[in-house]
Amino acid sequence: MTDNTFEKLTLLGLGAMGTALARAWLAAGHPLTVWNRTPSRAEPLAAAGATVAETAAEAVAASDLVVVCLLDDASVGAAMADADLTDKDLVNLTTSTPAQARVRAEWAEKRGARFLDGGIMAVPPMIGAPESGGYVFYSGSRALFDAHRSALAIPAGTSYVGEDPGFAALHDVALLSAMTGMFAGVSHAFALIRKEDIAPANFAPLLVNWLTAMAPYAYGTADHLESGDYTKGVVSNLAMMTEGNTTLLRTADEQGVSAELLTPFTTLMERRLADGHGDEGTTGVIDLLIR
Amino acid sequence: MTDNTFEKLTLLGLGAMGTALARAWLAAGHPLTVWNRTPSRAEPLAAAGATVAETAAEAVAASDLVVVCLLDDASVGAAMADADLTDKDLVNLTTSTPAQARVRAEWAEKRGARFLDGGIMAVPPMIGAPESGGYVFYSGSRALFDAHRSALAIPAGTSYVGEDPGFAALHDVALLSAMTGMFAGVSHAFALIRKEDIAPANFAPLLVNWLTAMAPYAYGTADHLESGDYTKGVVSNLAMMTEGNTTLLRTADEQGVSAELLTPFTTLMERRLADGHGDEGTTGVIDLLIR
Repeated sequence: MTDNTFEKLTLLGLGAMGTALARAWLAAGHPLTVWNRTPSRAEPLAAAGATVAETAAEAVAASDLVVVCLLDDASVGAAMADADLTDKDLVNLTTSTPAQARVRAEWAEKRGARFLDGGIMAVPPMIGAPESGGYVFYSGSRALFDAHRSALAIPAGTSYVGEDPGFAALHDVALLSAMTGMFAGVSHAFALIRKEDIAPANFAPLLVNWLTAMAPYAYGTADHLESGDYTKGVVSNLAMMTEGNTTLLRTADEQGVSAELLTPFTTLMERRLADGHGDEGTTGVIDLLIR
Repeated sequence: MTDNTFEKLTLLGLGAMGTALARAWLAAGHPLTVWNRTPSRAEPLAAAGATVAETAAEAVAASDLVVVCLLDDASVGAAMADADLTDKDLVNLTTSTPAQARVRAEWAEKRGARFLDGGIMAVPPMIGAPESGGYVFYSGSRALFDAHRSALAIPAGTSYVGEDPGFAALHDVALLSAMTGMFAGVSHAFALIRKEDIAPANFAPLLVNWLTAMAPYAYGTADHLESGDYTKGVVSNLAMMTEGNTTLLRTADEQGVSAELLTPFTTLMERRLADGHGDEGTTGVIDLLIR
């Protein structure tokens, strides 16, 4: 075992996620300095072995590796306004947009730090539990990522997605956006059966199995985008699907369920069909979304 | 082996799905009589051993078990206007809404037939390929389902969901609606990365794995609906998710992607939050959809 196994690190921000991260590093044996704007949040961690810094600048000074998990991007700038970032390895796990992460990377580099941005694909209870499947997208300095790989792998799995510091946030947001669509569909499905004598607990496994079986549709979409041929391997084409949408919308109406979660997508499918793409799948909808 | 193994049946409608069904039954050794409004569609099936009837009435007369897979519900009434349905077992695989299926069941029963409605969760290439995972929801006469179970199991798996003849269509539509939401989310996700140096083929597995991991969220939703407690087991609550949506919408704007596929759901989440349900998950959105 080298010293590196117990690499010392600093964590700024002790919300639910920050606290979960802190506990994971402490449990793994990493010397940890923490700071939080509201000091009381640090007390349980002090009892668990963390060093509590009085200021963010003091916390940053304590370690070469500084992890930040604050409320938002503005809080990152505010918290470290007075900190000396020279030669620091700064890992930003604060929720950000890709553009915010890119600007923050420039900000860090100007102040002499290497920068890595992270997007956490997990909720706090999944942190420190490798079997939960949670992971963190990282992008930015590959050298930083490689240098601290073992420490970064403690809270959750890691997935490095590129030198562009905005890519971690972009991957994070893209996956969460796709999930939002899935949850919208799930909500509509439950609304349809809500007033019928169908037990949600019996319906749920059918829904989960179906969505799991259909998720790989995204591989076909990727293939269309890669090849530029949106008809490749299409079985149920846009003309057929649009016809089928009529039944979906009519059923919503019959069941007394608002179709507002379905209509934006069916409307785009109709637009693409009207543009003469009835032999494609739904991939062309992507082009209609881009301004 | 009993005679029942080779039960004789009639199929009305030879579109892509009807043709796939016909081929599956012929391949399994079932004597099959077919009819289609456009007779030329029947020719390849005649070569494969099917008996081709000149009229729908003649086709119906040929077998006790009559399967119908036509364009829409109106076509079902039109095709069998002159047919004698007395003592027939009528299985309707025509795409219908739940209300249409219920009316069609009454229509069939008044004419002396037992009625079973089916909703096919498969595309034609999955028919006759049990390993494809395709299946058919059935609802209506349990006696009919039990009597013809082995013949019905030939094209795809079977799932009987209740005596209510509308339930097969309702399950079918609910699952397809959920899938529509998922596809909308997938489209938005690909749109976000479209102009970046991220290969769709590398992004797709991340997306598929994430959606597969998150689909079981529906079990929690079912649990909320069963118990009436929408806060049960909630980790990321509505207040936190709504805050997170700000990042999703801001990122869409930054990437030049219309957020029209996301906003209907985020708007409903905000309405539920404004109603004082910040400690819940997203289950309350379902109540907002029901008129």
